[in-house]
Amino acid sequence: MDVHEAIRTRRSIRTYLDRPVSRDHLLQLIEAACWAPSASNLQTWRFVILTRPDKLRALRVLAPGFIGRAPSAIVICQDAKEIARRAGQAAVDFCANMDSACAAQNIMLEAHALGLGTCAVGSFEADALRELLDLPTHVLPMLLVAVGYPRSRPEPPQRHIEGSYYFEGYHE
Amino acid sequence: MDVHEAIRTRRSIRTYLDRPVSRDHLLQLIEAACWAPSASNLQTWRFVILTRPDKLRALRVLAPGFIGRAPSAIVICQDAKEIARRAGQAAVDFCANMDSACAAQNIMLEAHALGLGTCAVGSFEADALRELLDLPTHVLPMLLVAVGYPRSRPEPPQRHIEGSYYFEGYHE
Repeated sequence: MDVHEAIRTRRSIRTYLDRPVSRDHLLQLIEAACWAPSASNLQTWRFVILTRPDKLRALRVLAPGFIGRAPSAIVICQDAKEIARRAGQAAVDFCANMDSACAAQNIMLEAHALGLGTCAVGSFEADALRELLDLPTHVLPMLLVAVGYPRSRPEPPQRHIEGSYYFEGYHE
Repeated sequence: MDVHEAIRTRRSIRTYLDRPVSRDHLLQLIEAACWAPSASNLQTWRFVILTRPDKLRALRVLAPGFIGRAPSAIVICQDAKEIARRAGQAAVDFCANMDSACAAQNIMLEAHALGLGTCAVGSFEADALRELLDLPTHVLPMLLVAVGYPRSRPEPPQRHIEGSYYFEGYHE
């Protein structure tokens, strides 16, 4: 699928077929994520892939936005100790956020080209998620991405392009 | 260009040809950015496009990572007042960071497909940048993206895919 088309036809998918995603496809999404840029090329992302029904059930409880019974999820985490060691403590928040989101966008576009649907979810009970994933304290869960075959593809919400940009300086 | 290929062949470009980027191409990048997902579909991004030599010179001073004499830049900003109004004050940091980075990744992939090079820069003197762009206090500058024709394409830095992912839970 053309990148131009992929960017414009990707949708956040909120209902999924009861059909598993293959391990090969999941690993292809991880590979796409790893090709995202990262601050100072740190590559401090860590991905936890969930496919077990009991784990996904627990995820639905602690992340109310994780809906539609996706058969798999990728939890994008960041190794805060590694960021701090290589870029300084002050860089942790910025790098963890920005690098996770760039990786997520690659996952979502690659998935779309594979016929998969995704939905990024940023709201969750962090402590419960840490426990579910056995995360050590220095590995921060940043973003969940639901992954599965779409049951339906919603129409695109309207995009507000006019009025979102300015040349040479901001003016209202 | 295929999305799979675009994701894997995009590079951060740090030297540019002395050749301007057309207004049409710059607007195509903004449109790609606007197709990124945003938390609760807020679309609170604001883009300031710089092409004037005096503005770019000033940008180089306040953002030391903005190198290689790119002929244009897109500054991704977020309307914090609008995020707070629609999603609550607690959502501002998260939405501003994540949504900006997803938009940036779309810009970088679309640019790559157009034969353009980009480099995201997250480090800048925020007050000086606000002044340069005439940003009101509620519009936050989040990320710069240099845009131009690559003078050269560096080899890809090695990707550490093995060891970056875990199934069903984290384990070192």
